[in-house]
Amino acid sequence: MEDCIFCKIIKGELPSNRVFENEHAIAIMDIMPSAPGHTLVIPKEHATNIFDASEESIVEGFRVAHKIAGAVKNSVNADGLNIYINNGESAFQVVMHPHIHMLPRFKGDGHKPWGHVERSKEQIAEDAEAIRGSL
Amino acid sequence: MEDCIFCKIIKGELPSNRVFENEHAIAIMDIMPSAPGHTLVIPKEHATNIFDASEESIVEGFRVAHKIAGAVKNSVNADGLNIYINNGESAFQVVMHPHIHMLPRFKGDGHKPWGHVERSKEQIAEDAEAIRGSL
Repeated sequence: MEDCIFCKIIKGELPSNRVFENEHAIAIMDIMPSAPGHTLVIPKEHATNIFDASEESIVEGFRVAHKIAGAVKNSVNADGLNIYINNGESAFQVVMHPHIHMLPRFKGDGHKPWGHVERSKEQIAEDAEAIRGSL
Repeated sequence: MEDCIFCKIIKGELPSNRVFENEHAIAIMDIMPSAPGHTLVIPKEHATNIFDASEESIVEGFRVAHKIAGAVKNSVNADGLNIYINNGESAFQVVMHPHIHMLPRFKGDGHKPWGHVERSKEQIAEDAEAIRGSL
């Protein structure tokens, strides 16, 4: 897509630190990292996010994530790794092209879990019924 | 695996609110949700996390995540969706069996992004080199 920064990076029209590439996706360093080694896997096919992306582009993106997970963690001697895809502005998606974050984690690095909401067993059962009904 | 709570749920030895199942994975409601509609996709194959899980189990898990993403979001009228897999205790992994979180997001729901670290262009280029060297 013409104005998409990630499409331009994929095409080589903008620079990036590329660590992996195959037919379906590239993996590059995040230039605004949340930790050392923060890597992005970007499917080559343009879409906005998971809601309009093809199954193949998402599945192949996570195949790359699985492939490079150990290397991303080990390269910076991390203890763990969060792998996530944010979909929609309210989910912290900034660039509107699907991308998978790979965030190395270190003991005591200060990132906090997102906590919990109060939700009764009955409400959770209703949520399940609503999802089944939407499938 | 005998003592794994998710293996027991998969086998039906423990109860769950199941919203989807296929040959490779189940999707259930998280009983400690971070938002209404918080769903877990759990590959049936036991492993600890992405570092020892098979490529197929992870890829098929995210195929299910892609399949149900719209239903999870729409069922609770959410604005967005975070999809993530936590690997290792320092990455907030609690149950040691791979599982993909699907967290519906709402404008103003209070979850904060994890922020950024200072990392120079040179350091980022070194990180990239270290990852390529670990692949």
